[in-house]
Amino acid sequence: MQVTLVNYTPNPELTIVAAARSSASQSTIEELWHNLSPQQIDDLLKQLLDSGHLSPFEHSSFTFNIQGISRATSHQLVRHRLASYTQQSQRYVALKERRYVTPPTITKQADFLAKYQRAMESAHELYSQMLEANIPAEDARYVLPQAVETQLVMTMNARELVHACSLRLCLRAQWEIVELFERLKAEVERVAPRLGAELKPKCYRLGYCDERESCGIFPTLKSETKTK
Amino acid sequence: MQVTLVNYTPNPELTIVAAARSSASQSTIEELWHNLSPQQIDDLLKQLLDSGHLSPFEHSSFTFNIQGISRATSHQLVRHRLASYTQQSQRYVALKERRYVTPPTITKQADFLAKYQRAMESAHELYSQMLEANIPAEDARYVLPQAVETQLVMTMNARELVHACSLRLCLRAQWEIVELFERLKAEVERVAPRLGAELKPKCYRLGYCDERESCGIFPTLKSETKTK
Amino acid sequence: MQVTLVNYTPNPELTIVAAARSSASQSTIEELWHNLSPQQIDDLLKQLLDSGHLSPFEHSSFTFNIQGISRATSHQLVRHRLASYTQQSQRYVALKERRYVTPPTITKQADFLAKYQRAMESAHELYSQMLEANIPAEDARYVLPQAVETQLVMTMNARELVHACSLRLCLRAQWEIVELFERLKAEVERVAPRLGAELKPKCYRLGYCDERESCGIFPTLKSETKTK
Amino acid sequence: MQVTLVNYTPNPELTIVAAARSSASQSTIEELWHNLSPQQIDDLLKQLLDSGHLSPFEHSSFTFNIQGISRATSHQLVRHRLASYTQQSQRYVALKERRYVTPPTITKQADFLAKYQRAMESAHELYSQMLEANIPAEDARYVLPQAVETQLVMTMNARELVHACSLRLCLRAQWEIVELFERLKAEVERVAPRLGAELKPKCYRLGYCDERESCGIFPTLKSETKTK
Repeated sequence: MQVTLVNYTPNPELTIVAAARSSASQSTIEELWHNLSPQQIDDLLKQLLDSGHLSPFEHSSFTFNIQGISRATSHQLVRHRLASYTQQSQRYVALKERRYVTPPTITKQADFLAKYQRAMESAHELYSQMLEANIPAEDARYVLPQAVETQLVMTMNARELVHACSLRLCLRAQWEIVELFERLKAEVERVAPRLGAELKPKCYRLGYCDERESCGIFPTLKSETKTK
Repeated sequence: MQVTLVNYTPNPELTIVAAARSSASQSTIEELWHNLSPQQIDDLLKQLLDSGHLSPFEHSSFTFNIQGISRATSHQLVRHRLASYTQQSQRYVALKERRYVTPPTITKQADFLAKYQRAMESAHELYSQMLEANIPAEDARYVLPQAVETQLVMTMNARELVHACSLRLCLRAQWEIVELFERLKAEVERVAPRLGAELKPKCYRLGYCDERESCGIFPTLKSETKTK
Repeated sequence: MQVTLVNYTPNPELTIVAAARSSASQSTIEELWHNLSPQQIDDLLKQLLDSGHLSPFEHSSFTFNIQGISRATSHQLVRHRLASYTQQSQRYVALKERRYVTPPTITKQADFLAKYQRAMESAHELYSQMLEANIPAEDARYVLPQAVETQLVMTMNARELVHACSLRLCLRAQWEIVELFERLKAEVERVAPRLGAELKPKCYRLGYCDERESCGIFPTLKSETKTK
Repeated sequence: MQVTLVNYTPNPELTIVAAARSSASQSTIEELWHNLSPQQIDDLLKQLLDSGHLSPFEHSSFTFNIQGISRATSHQLVRHRLASYTQQSQRYVALKERRYVTPPTITKQADFLAKYQRAMESAHELYSQMLEANIPAEDARYVLPQAVETQLVMTMNARELVHACSLRLCLRAQWEIVELFERLKAEVERVAPRLGAELKPKCYRLGYCDERESCGIFPTLKSETKTK
């Protein structure tokens, strides 16, 4: 898996904070732009997140190149509807390289690993034969396993990144999508360390685990303490 | 493939038209509700579509049960972001039946068909073995082909149905998703014949084909006639 | 202010719960439809809300006629982007009746109330004069106060209703929009009492107040208990 | 009215085109990034627009500071739901300056202009008196006319800009929102001239006018030529 931040709104944290502040101010975003100290940016970012005032986070967007994830995972990823995706088409692009993802639970079992690899090879082999026989790529690909690698460009704004990370960095999410979001977070941290640090599982925000079973980091909340 | 309309906004066409009319009227939707003749509903529906005033079409929604489409196709389907999906999880549900979709181009070639069926069988066989060996379903499914059948519940409002049909009923779309949208259209037509009749490929609305090559129904537009 | 539920997805709670259950089941929504007891519907609805699995709530939608709210409030309302609105146009409809909203803080002060009413009257008077002088309604309305009444049709799905109520039933929201959402909630409760009961301010869900100052129902959370 | 582009995705046209091309290519967006000539960017941008393949346009976003538009117009503007807005709050900000917009149709009639200006003054005067009497700003503002100026930060991606301009640059749109979109277009043209040039009324794209009456630039389409 390879995740690269290829483009983003310059000064993403300042953009969020200056926009937010302009809504409760006589000043415009342009006037505020040059008058916010790093400390103020930091404080305001936290304040907005703590109070759930998330709409200003939409003003900053991040565009990633994502390569080498499985179609199983890309199918989950694109369910986040408040983002933009341009995925490599299996209709128009005939896959030449035989690339696929192997789950760690399979890697660990030597005999299944061998069977898994043979299954991948034979699926790709049949795919190639069908292409040669002029079966269209869009149909030949039906034989390809869900493990097959895909690549896509994704643009997500900071609000949706905060939301998606709250779900997908949860250890109950699927291992491959957890890894994907860890890499997305790392890329954001590189250029926007304060914002990147705020990309975390939902329990860190809630102060408790709202899943049926906790992974141990935060306890689940007894229902009686929550309702009044 | 099986598509059933399981629920929908009652009186979907009246809802759209009465809402639309209320915006340019002293009357409310409740007053208009009982004062629109079938002919007026028909005329207004066409007028709204012809002039591209589509937002009132959002007031009527349709909920479908969709079974027996491939994961290749469901991956495309869920890219329509202005709709709601609840798909059978391959993480929580271990597939028991070995059901998969076969593209017609493969059915037509007897020797590939046999190979295809064997590939499906052996992928499902390995999947079952892995489940028995306690590999989690969410990982075992990596070996399943993209042809594997899935089921999902989809709710789409009439505006997005008009839009999605304009793209997916185009004969240049992929055959399985064309068939899916033909069935969605047929189900809508059953309860809302006027609206259903308006679900058609984009060329019928544009009066020309905007794809690179036309399927023959409408000609492509020479660029010089379009720009001024 | 007058709020009427004019249409909605039949069996809205069953629709949500049956869709949700189909995602982790071998059964389809059609099979589950007839096999869920009222108690199960109730339990599942709560479970989904408690664990934040909200996407199935999108399968049920509610269409309201809203009359007699101020343009000040409708401007706020339409900021909820995940909903559909058809508002009476001040461009195409010349307002004949002089209807406006008066905030309680003004009603309480007799002398300001009189001035307020005179201001409303004279604004409407100038509006009428301009219309008679053939100034277009779309321009004449610039003189109308933000208190002026408007009517609109709104369709919102149950997920967005849960979200919007969590914000707008908070006592720190503006009084007129609080009243609007109380009426929306009452209308939903009429046909879907279990869902209606779950429309409540965010603090009831969080177990604490995340605003800067609490209204007293739930205490604010000391930041040290929330971060780890 | 003052419109300033305060931030945007760098290389917005290249971003769109490189993303689009990666979907039908063995190459990634990173590889394509450095291998597209200005001419190719130009051609591809046009091709995408002509064929209605608009989703790659979502990868580039533009953030504007908008000042001095009326609340009448901002109410219309925020109806474009696929964009992000942070508007100056009339709840938290007490307006100090008496700024308002005057429609040209009123400016032209000297006697109405005087009445209009007096109406604005007296509304602002009552507003100030109420603030002094400790009526909250959120209630005092009910007396302010819809002409009152507002400021907001808006982020819109290039796809929605293309769509919104297709509607709002139409001469049948309201004069103030036409002017707003002309200025938005001019700001985009400054940094992305090819994209900016493609921001135009829908008739330029359709080749005909789909409104009931044409402004004269393109004729309306006789219905018989459009249906088959």
